[in-house]
Amino acid sequence: MSDCVFCAIVAGTAPASIVLDEPDVLAFMDIRPFTPGHLLVIPKRHASGLAHLAPQDGAQVFDAGRRIATALRASSLPVDGVNLFLADGVAAGQEVFHVHLHVVPRRRGDGFGLRAVPRTPNRTVLDGTAETVRAALAETGGSAG
Amino acid sequence: MSDCVFCAIVAGTAPASIVLDEPDVLAFMDIRPFTPGHLLVIPKRHASGLAHLAPQDGAQVFDAGRRIATALRASSLPVDGVNLFLADGVAAGQEVFHVHLHVVPRRRGDGFGLRAVPRTPNRTVLDGTAETVRAALAETGGSAG
Ligand SMILES: [Zn+2]
Ligand SMILES: [Zn+2]
Repeated sequence: MSDCVFCAIVAGTAPASIVLDEPDVLAFMDIRPFTPGHLLVIPKRHASGLAHLAPQDGAQVFDAGRRIATALRASSLPVDGVNLFLADGVAAGQEVFHVHLHVVPRRRGDGFGLRAVPRTPNRTVLDGTAETVRAALAETGGSAG
Repeated sequence: MSDCVFCAIVAGTAPASIVLDEPDVLAFMDIRPFTPGHLLVIPKRHASGLAHLAPQDGAQVFDAGRRIATALRASSLPVDGVNLFLADGVAAGQEVFHVHLHVVPRRRGDGFGLRAVPRTPNRTVLDGTAETVRAALAETGGSAG
């Protein structure tokens, strides 16, 4: 994909502070980190969103995130926990349209977190929603149903 | 794990609104949803955190999340985007110590999002941090270095 900044990083034509370079995935520091050590894991093969991501690439991105999370906790950086975060779609906050998994090192009181007001629907509502998602999974070939 | 509510759901001894039931993973509605359709994907095998998660289980959890995200967008629920979120450790907001991936359907203006103030460190700082993470990856057998 031309015009994709992450493809340019993969191609070596845009700068990045690389953490992990494997045949199918690349990890590098986020240039606008939420916390010190915040980095991104991407598939080398361009995919704008989850719907276009090869299952195997997704598995490798997550596995790299898992290994990096473990490494961050063992590193000399101040890390007591880790968040993994992925935004799929503009409405979800996605800004670069090449799939990327955020790996965010956490410390108590670091100011990072979720903005959310959980609701407490009853079991009937939850069962109804589950039914709706199961039907959509069957329709989209994601199994279930 | 006795006393683990997610293991109880896997065992069928605690209630849940199941969305996907496969040999190694289970997905069910979050009982305190951030948005309508918010659900959790877990490995059936207990793992308190990423450090103890079998790589294969992690890959399957992520793949189920990917398929469910696609299904949510195709469903009759109001979904314009999806966030995947995982909290590893108390400092990261983890509350149930059995690995779980949040799948959060998004709409513009739904009020959900990240609380974060991105910084803009210079390239020298980013390169230094990348170097630190690379060293920790090598030390923990996560490769690189
Ligand atoms: Zn790209
Ligand atoms: Zn458990």
